[in-house]
Amino acid sequence: MSRFWSPLVHTLTPYVPGEQPKIANLIKLNTNELPYGPSPRALEAIKAATDDSLRLYPDPEALALRTALGKRVGLGAEHVFVGNGSDEVLAHAFQALFAHGEPLLFPDVSYSFYKVYCGLYKLPYRMVPLSADMRIVVEDYAGPCSGVVIANPNAPTGIALGLDAIRRLLEMHPERVVLVDEAYVDFGAQSAVELVREYPNLLVVQTFSKSRALAGARVGFAFGQPDLIEALVRVKDSFNSYPLDRLAQVGALASVEDEAWFAQGVQQVVTNRTLLSEGLEALGFEVLPSTANFVYTRHPDRDAGELAAQLRSRAILVRHLKGERTMAWLRITVGTQEQCQALLDVLRDSVLRNS
Amino acid sequence: MSRFWSPLVHTLTPYVPGEQPKIANLIKLNTNELPYGPSPRALEAIKAATDDSLRLYPDPEALALRTALGKRVGLGAEHVFVGNGSDEVLAHAFQALFAHGEPLLFPDVSYSFYKVYCGLYKLPYRMVPLSADMRIVVEDYAGPCSGVVIANPNAPTGIALGLDAIRRLLEMHPERVVLVDEAYVDFGAQSAVELVREYPNLLVVQTFSKSRALAGARVGFAFGQPDLIEALVRVKDSFNSYPLDRLAQVGALASVEDEAWFAQGVQQVVTNRTLLSEGLEALGFEVLPSTANFVYTRHPDRDAGELAAQLRSRAILVRHLKGERTMAWLRITVGTQEQCQALLDVLRDSVLRNS
Repeated sequence: MSRFWSPLVHTLTPYVPGEQPKIANLIKLNTNELPYGPSPRALEAIKAATDDSLRLYPDPEALALRTALGKRVGLGAEHVFVGNGSDEVLAHAFQALFAHGEPLLFPDVSYSFYKVYCGLYKLPYRMVPLSADMRIVVEDYAGPCSGVVIANPNAPTGIALGLDAIRRLLEMHPERVVLVDEAYVDFGAQSAVELVREYPNLLVVQTFSKSRALAGARVGFAFGQPDLIEALVRVKDSFNSYPLDRLAQVGALASVEDEAWFAQGVQQVVTNRTLLSEGLEALGFEVLPSTANFVYTRHPDRDAGELAAQLRSRAILVRHLKGERTMAWLRITVGTQEQCQALLDVLRDSVLRNS
Repeated sequence: MSRFWSPLVHTLTPYVPGEQPKIANLIKLNTNELPYGPSPRALEAIKAATDDSLRLYPDPEALALRTALGKRVGLGAEHVFVGNGSDEVLAHAFQALFAHGEPLLFPDVSYSFYKVYCGLYKLPYRMVPLSADMRIVVEDYAGPCSGVVIANPNAPTGIALGLDAIRRLLEMHPERVVLVDEAYVDFGAQSAVELVREYPNLLVVQTFSKSRALAGARVGFAFGQPDLIEALVRVKDSFNSYPLDRLAQVGALASVEDEAWFAQGVQQVVTNRTLLSEGLEALGFEVLPSTANFVYTRHPDRDAGELAAQLRSRAILVRHLKGERTMAWLRITVGTQEQCQALLDVLRDSVLRNS
């Protein structure tokens, strides 16, 4: 507390990101990073750009990257926005598109940054409960609102909606933006990007931090019709002209152009996810059907917080979220086959043996 | 315009950054980049970090970088904030520290992003006129306000205030934050960072984009007492947990540790500034006394916009800012000795010959 703070600052409850420990030899399954490195072409492109040109500002419009992202899905650059991670893209979207007086709607169990943005921009919101089996029920999102935000697949559950459900949401609120946060979509869900031309109220947000293994480079992006993109650009250019540095731009561009590497990494995670899910079930865990690069799981007899603490003491990090509906669950990132197996071994041979 | 936009978006007048042309062989003296490359140690550090670890999120607190920045000026990491360029640092500061109902005060001729931030955060503001000779008159900043923002040296004039004047501002408003934007301070002005321990209402903002030749990496920082830093952190963590990517953090850190390279680059710019200023004066230009890496200049008989256009047609970019008090002036970045001489030659042999 300080007399110098704007009143807003006193009211903020910032987001708490997953731990980024500085110790080595951890099995880090807590922040949903890909267990494999980024495209070698991305690394090459970054190294090639690491020269005296870093003295120059980057392209404030990131046109080459936006063009490549659009081309991949059949859209022009005017349909594409890029930002410093999808968190920044989401922040701008919340400010630019959701201040219409009525509450913004999003699930009660979802990415916990959504309500933080509402605090930052003083947006009223209503958290719509997931069903008892932790699913989004589209019909619960009817009624006056300033917009709808859905993570698809949802985090931390990993459960995806089909495009039919996304269409119903879009048609339920033709005068409001429906933001579909597809941070995890590449691991098995269907992207709504193919609906962008059809629905002027659709904004699709994706990231390089998961399926493209560039969390360390901070690049997120959004697809939408040009007037939605323009709203984001206007806010961005009133905040920071150059959020994407030169290296992030060239690295992300090379990553987009390496479709083979991308497909292989995603496929490997899907394979490992099956191993992890089946292994957990064999140990008595309930595992929600995941289309993400993590699984959401609980044990009928064991306290999730204690399980997380015991795993941590054995150098395995998983994520345990507080909150009434999430405290029984663990969110476990799908690692390499070896990491998944190591987790299962430790659970079976050690953690679950202690009563 | 769009029915989906938040009302705020309709009101924004975004900042327009200087041109970042994609054509080669320009003499680019329009956006105040250093004409020399960054520290070779920064380039090495970035290349060494360009590996599979990019799959991992960066340190959200950038602790190593903050510690090094603080150490250099005798402060702890708790006195240091870092962000995605000083523009992001400024944006957070405006939101976190200046919403107290009364107008925020800054000069009428200064960094034009200040009033853009006020638009973004709906902050009332009053632009205090510079004197006729384009100087900040500290006594004009008395009276009720939400805070004071001073660029020191001021941009685009290049004229610096001494620490005695900064002290008077701080003591004039003990209950309000005085933000000193020192983007250009390393080229000859005196930093207010030595006043941070003494004045709880002082926030000093600096950047890697100018004297450290890392505009392409997007790193800015601020010094202040811990409660001011905490305000910035709370806003940052309600907006984007990871604004500084892994490569920016390691590159900036290596740059801070290369004091010799830094001193050499700054000294060379100071030498070239003298060459440029004296050369312009010899051609009949008025040149304000600059302690920055640019000079602010006007010609008694020539239209500044036309001069800029003629230089541009000869592949030399300088900055011409619209506005009643700036339209007669050109802001010219101090380039290499060769670039400064080329500009002077083109002015003497060609541009000024055309009547």
